[in-house]
Parts: sequence; C-alpha cells; structure tokens
Amino acid sequence: MTTARTPAPTSTPTASLARLSINQETIKQWSLPELAEGCVKAGIGQVGLWRAPIQAYGVERTARLLSDAGLTVTSLCRGGFLTALDPAEQARALDDNRRAVDEAAAVATDTLVLVSGGLPPGSRDLYGARERVAEALAELAPYAAERGVRLAIEPLHPMFASDRCVVSTLAQALDLAERFPAEQVGVVVDTYHLWWDDRAPAEIARAGAGGRIHAFQLADWITPLPAGVLLGRGQLGDGSVDFRSFRTAVEAAGYDGPIEVEIFNEALWARDGAEVLAEVAARYGQHAC
Amino acid sequence: MTTARTPAPTSTPTASLARLSINQETIKQWSLPELAEGCVKAGIGQVGLWRAPIQAYGVERTARLLSDAGLTVTSLCRGGFLTALDPAEQARALDDNRRAVDEAAAVATDTLVLVSGGLPPGSRDLYGARERVAEALAELAPYAAERGVRLAIEPLHPMFASDRCVVSTLAQALDLAERFPAEQVGVVVDTYHLWWDDRAPAEIARAGAGGRIHAFQLADWITPLPAGVLLGRGQLGDGSVDFRSFRTAVEAAGYDGPIEVEIFNEALWARDGAEVLAEVAARYGQHAC
Repeated sequence: MTTARTPAPTSTPTASLARLSINQETIKQWSLPELAEGCVKAGIGQVGLWRAPIQAYGVERTARLLSDAGLTVTSLCRGGFLTALDPAEQARALDDNRRAVDEAAAVATDTLVLVSGGLPPGSRDLYGARERVAEALAELAPYAAERGVRLAIEPLHPMFASDRCVVSTLAQALDLAERFPAEQVGVVVDTYHLWWDDRAPAEIARAGAGGRIHAFQLADWITPLPAGVLLGRGQLGDGSVDFRSFRTAVEAAGYDGPIEVEIFNEALWARDGAEVLAEVAARYGQHAC
Repeated sequence: MTTARTPAPTSTPTASLARLSINQETIKQWSLPELAEGCVKAGIGQVGLWRAPIQAYGVERTARLLSDAGLTVTSLCRGGFLTALDPAEQARALDDNRRAVDEAAAVATDTLVLVSGGLPPGSRDLYGARERVAEALAELAPYAAERGVRLAIEPLHPMFASDRCVVSTLAQALDLAERFPAEQVGVVVDTYHLWWDDRAPAEIARAGAGGRIHAFQLADWITPLPAGVLLGRGQLGDGSVDFRSFRTAVEAAGYDGPIEVEIFNEALWARDGAEVLAEVAARYGQHAC
C-alpha cells in the first residue's frame, strides 16, 4: 500500500471543517489579529463577531483584517434589547440597533443576531414585552434589508427570560419572525438554549420550511451552573447536548450554512487560544459531524 | 358610620389565608414542632412536608404532632428520580418511592410530589429518560392508589433538565400523567418552574379539564441566580411572576385546593421564622389573592 493510492486520512477532518465558524467569544483571550491568524493556521475559514471587540479594534479595520486573511464573517452579535417601556429608552435602543446593522454591513456579514431583552424593571408582562420586540422589528427589518443584513432572533434558554430575553423558545421566535419576510427576519438555532425542548425538532422543521434558519450555533449544556449562569456553557462533548441530532434536524430542514461554535466559559478563556481552537475543531468533528 | 355596621376589615385577610399552605422548606430554620406552633398561631391550617425532616423527627410522630395541632398536610415532597439506566439502581429507586408513598399515607396527605430525575451520567437521551419515568409510574401508581395517595408529576424549570428533572414543561408532565387514571397520576403547577412558558395557560386548562391539578405551588422568580441555581427562589412579590394570573388560570380550570408556598432561599432561612411566616402570609394576600 502506498500513500499515493489512497486519500490521506487527514482529508476527512479538513473537509469536515468547511462549515465550522468560530465565534470570537469562544476564544475571548485572543485579539482580532490573533483570531484571524489562528483560524487561518488551523484551516478554518469563518468567524462570528461581537460588537464590543470590533468597536474597540475599529469596525473598518476589522473588516480589512478579516478580508485580507480570507475569512468570512458568519454573524455579528448582537442587536436587540428592545423591550423598554420608556419611549425615549426604546428610541435609544432602536438607534443602537441601526448602528449594529451598519456594523454588520461594514464587516460584510449578512446576519445580525438579536437578543430581545428581558422584562423592564417592575414589569411581569412577558406578552407585552414580546409585542414591543415585534414593533421594533417592524422598524428595523426594512432598515437592515436595505443594507443587505438579515435579523436573526435568538431564543435564549428560559433561565434568561426575566433579565435578558423574553423569547425563550424557537416557537416564540418564529411567531415573531413570521410576521416579516423570511429574507428580513429569521431565527438562530442554538443548541445551548434549545436542547431541553421536545418541540425543538418540529420547530426546526418549521423554521427550515420557511427559510428562516439564519444561524446555527453550538455549545454544550453542563452543570453545575455558575452564579449568574451566563458563563456556564460547555465545550462540545462535555455535556448533555446531542449535537448530531440537531445537525441532522437543521440539515433535514434545508439548512446548509455555517455551523458556529459559541462557548462562554472562563476555563476555556484561561487556556492557550490555539489549544482551545484545536480542541473545538476536534470536538466538532467528533460530536457534530 | 359605625364599625358594627360594616364587616371588620381584618376578616378579609383571615378568610384569604384559608387556602394557604406553608411548605416546610420555606421556613427550614423551624423544627417540626416550631412549624406546627407557628402555623397555628398565625391562623394557617395547612402545611407541605419533605421526607428528610419527617424521617429525622419520626414519620408517625410527625403525623401525631400535626394531627394534634389540627393541621392538614397538603403534600409530601418528594418521590421520583426514576431515570436510571441500571436495572438495580432503578429497582432501588422504585423501592424508595414505595417508601415515600407509605410515608405520605402515614402523614395523611393524599399527594406525593414526584421530581422525575435527570439524565443518567453520560446519557444525552431525554426522550428515553422520560420513557423510563413512564414505566416507573406504571408500577408506582397502583401501589399509591391502594394507599390513598396520588402521584403529582412536577415539571421543573428547563435549567434543571440535565441533573434533576427531564420533565420541563406542563405539557410533558401531562403527556406522562394522561397515560394513567387522573385519580392516580396528576401534575404540580408551580409558578417558579412555569412562569416563562407561554403555553402554561393552555396546559393548565388541559390539566384542569382532566382533573389532574394535584398541587399548586408558589414561588417568585428572581435574578441573579446563585451558583447551582437551586436556592434562587424569591419571596412572593420580589420577582417576575404574575401570581394572580396563575391563580385565575388554575381556578378557571376548576382547581379549588390548597395553595402552597414553597421558597428555597438562604436569606429567608437566616431570618426569624415567625417573621418570615408573617411576610409570606402578607405577600400571599397582596399578590396571590
């Protein structure tokens, strides 16, 4: 047997990385230049970005850096927080979301992730808060569409319903998104937020049938949750999420876009970035391909 | 105007406490005799119990103490943890649940609360785990019915799905319960676990129509959640739960049973028990009546 006659075994893992995108918060310890260099070295062609670090580095400068490196930006996180009762506060939120759209366009991504916002102080009206999100979407969606940007409503785990996101299920996100054209407003399917929901498979099919899966994100569910619960996401394979089932479901629903790994975990942030990236790629191959 | 011609204003609060039950974990700092004495003094006639403290005090002794005090036991927490893959472990869990039924009968409550259990180590199969709960119910329900005890499946907030309870919604709990006669297996409607779910009102109606609301429990949702999230429940009125809507929904569904306050909160446990009880009663009157 000669190596020339059989495909190199390494070709399979390399091919399998084609759809992988690394959300920059997964390797928060890396600067944007380190992220660009690290991804290129690892053979990864796509990244997801967050507003604060690209604002700090410079939005146009980020766009040039990633373009020069040949990297595609799969999404920008995040707009949203559109549940204020105070009209002046809501107007400020809409202005900020228009800036987020502009930034998404500037870094050449077609997808702006929206986290809707929680309950205003003292309010117990989840339904009213969701309606204010719908009203805000009616203003933002055409603005974004004119700039080539789709809004992607991200349902967050119900443990965030009061303080961060009144949209807790894919069904609720689709109820909102379907009031608008699919090319303007869709949803994010994030395994961390949806893994527990027995309705998720049916809602993924609904989302796919409508052409509304605008992003697909992976993180694992691990316990115990830390105080505040925000930084409790797990490395792929360390927890309870059946990634292969989710991937099968979104693909059966017609999704063939990027698969973005977005993990917020202080233990990962304390390690060497290149080592974390290699581990993410290996785990992705092992659990999600 | 004379006071003799109008009903005393204090009669309303007293009457409104008629359905209130105090779950003993809400005032965990109290021994069982302190709980009995404190409730009688406060004009509260119902308590909910937990297995560990009544085992420590003695089950028969608890029954006599509460009976002598004229208190009704509205529920015993808890059976469950019925998701083991290992047959020997599952057999031990069934044995333990039969003992829980016996204890419920001994303290003269008709309701044993069941928390189903989480995923076994290494498993990612929520569906399979729920099916094992159903199989266990088929063994336990007739045993309980012979002893005058109803099993009440408690859906826990989805943040507990991996490590404590694979039943996360009222819909899932009813899907399980409806495989059995309503007088044998029903559900717990607990505001803390269900407040975020836009399907809860419809599922409460479904539960009521089937005669399956076996318990109604109150706690508020507050943030930030503490590490481990178990002890993060809030005093009534401190958080996001719209208690009056829940009470209206369960009553519209035909429920007229006890309303049990069950709060796990270290700050409440650090205070004087009588003061906490008075606060719970006042908040109950203010927010849930």
